[in-house]
Amino acid sequence: MSHGKQFTLYTHKGGPNGWKVAYVLAELGLTYESIYLDFNKLEQKAPEYTQYNPNGRIPTLIDHKNNDFTVWESNAIIVYLVEKYDTAHRISAVTPEDKIKQLQWLFFQASGQGPYFGQAVWFKVYHQEKVPSAVERYQKETVRVISVLDGVLQKQEWLVGGKLSVADIAFVSWNNAAFGMVLSDYPGANVEKDYPAFWKWHQTLVALPSIKKVSDERAALQAA
Amino acid sequence: MSHGKQFTLYTHKGGPNGWKVAYVLAELGLTYESIYLDFNKLEQKAPEYTQYNPNGRIPTLIDHKNNDFTVWESNAIIVYLVEKYDTAHRISAVTPEDKIKQLQWLFFQASGQGPYFGQAVWFKVYHQEKVPSAVERYQKETVRVISVLDGVLQKQEWLVGGKLSVADIAFVSWNNAAFGMVLSDYPGANVEKDYPAFWKWHQTLVALPSIKKVSDERAALQAA
Repeated sequence: MSHGKQFTLYTHKGGPNGWKVAYVLAELGLTYESIYLDFNKLEQKAPEYTQYNPNGRIPTLIDHKNNDFTVWESNAIIVYLVEKYDTAHRISAVTPEDKIKQLQWLFFQASGQGPYFGQAVWFKVYHQEKVPSAVERYQKETVRVISVLDGVLQKQEWLVGGKLSVADIAFVSWNNAAFGMVLSDYPGANVEKDYPAFWKWHQTLVALPSIKKVSDERAALQAA
Repeated sequence: MSHGKQFTLYTHKGGPNGWKVAYVLAELGLTYESIYLDFNKLEQKAPEYTQYNPNGRIPTLIDHKNNDFTVWESNAIIVYLVEKYDTAHRISAVTPEDKIKQLQWLFFQASGQGPYFGQAVWFKVYHQEKVPSAVERYQKETVRVISVLDGVLQKQEWLVGGKLSVADIAFVSWNNAAFGMVLSDYPGANVEKDYPAFWKWHQTLVALPSIKKVSDERAALQAA
């Protein structure tokens, strides 16, 4: 750890899952050095990286103050961070039941939001042929996930325990991808008008100082 | 809870995510009543169900011995079950670090295995048009996920803590779907030969008495 910071975060300049972890690190005021892998050079599949993460995807976190404990899967990283370094529960659930509810939303994010929003991006940008019915499938699912969140947020301000938590923060980066990419050409999509509770929640989240700071770092990297 | 059992499990006769929870309930010797939703009647989207699970998918668990505590997302359910009812850690990690590793594999299952194996099934069976390049994409990803697990299992018998845990059990039902459906026509796929460590691990898991018992129940329902 020649960089002198507590954590090393293996991540990517664009990928939402790494920024998700950066948001939480920043929110907790923890110091970390980001190592941005170059997917064009397949650095995420090289042995130097897969020794830490056999899945060959980002992110991976190493905690140099805990015997270089290494963990991958963004939401497992987030749970590690709050369990170990948010003992005051500033951004994490308090009771055993709320901790399970927090985990429920993290799994919904990991299994329902990320992969489906990601498949929309795949078929819009990277797939070898144009398949409009596949793009539409994943755009529809993106809107459905937003509608599920909106329905819950009509009745409560935050997902868990009546306060901001990592359950909310975990959705930010893929929601940004939904607005910027997935739904940009989806006929009739007007998230602000159709899903106002969701929209307000997302706007509150992106205005949090730590999330804004990290998002500005991301924008600067993208522009460079 | 007129059925007199501790839990009500809302699930589906075929869907892998519900059977995953049933495996864990059986392994822990807990009593539960399964309510099988009929997707053809869209029962999973009806208010009687979405009052418990706003996502309108299965499974959902209600614990009648804990004030009817309700949780959805299969892997959040599984963590709830072991944290509350496997205090002897018979099938769950013991140390804080191993608990995070267990969670890491559960997130890999939820985000990397389930959705991608599921998309393969979608494009093979349900999609409105034939898209061979989409089927191939998800078959390839299925093999890649198997190869990641195989690489780890070449060096260790179990995923976490040197013993059987829910991290292993969580992969069983979608792996069964991979063999039975996803890879049935994939050129050159020979999991037993190409990924022997993975194959041995899966065979050990499906031979566990509780998993075998629940799998037999599933087969009987499918045949009915």
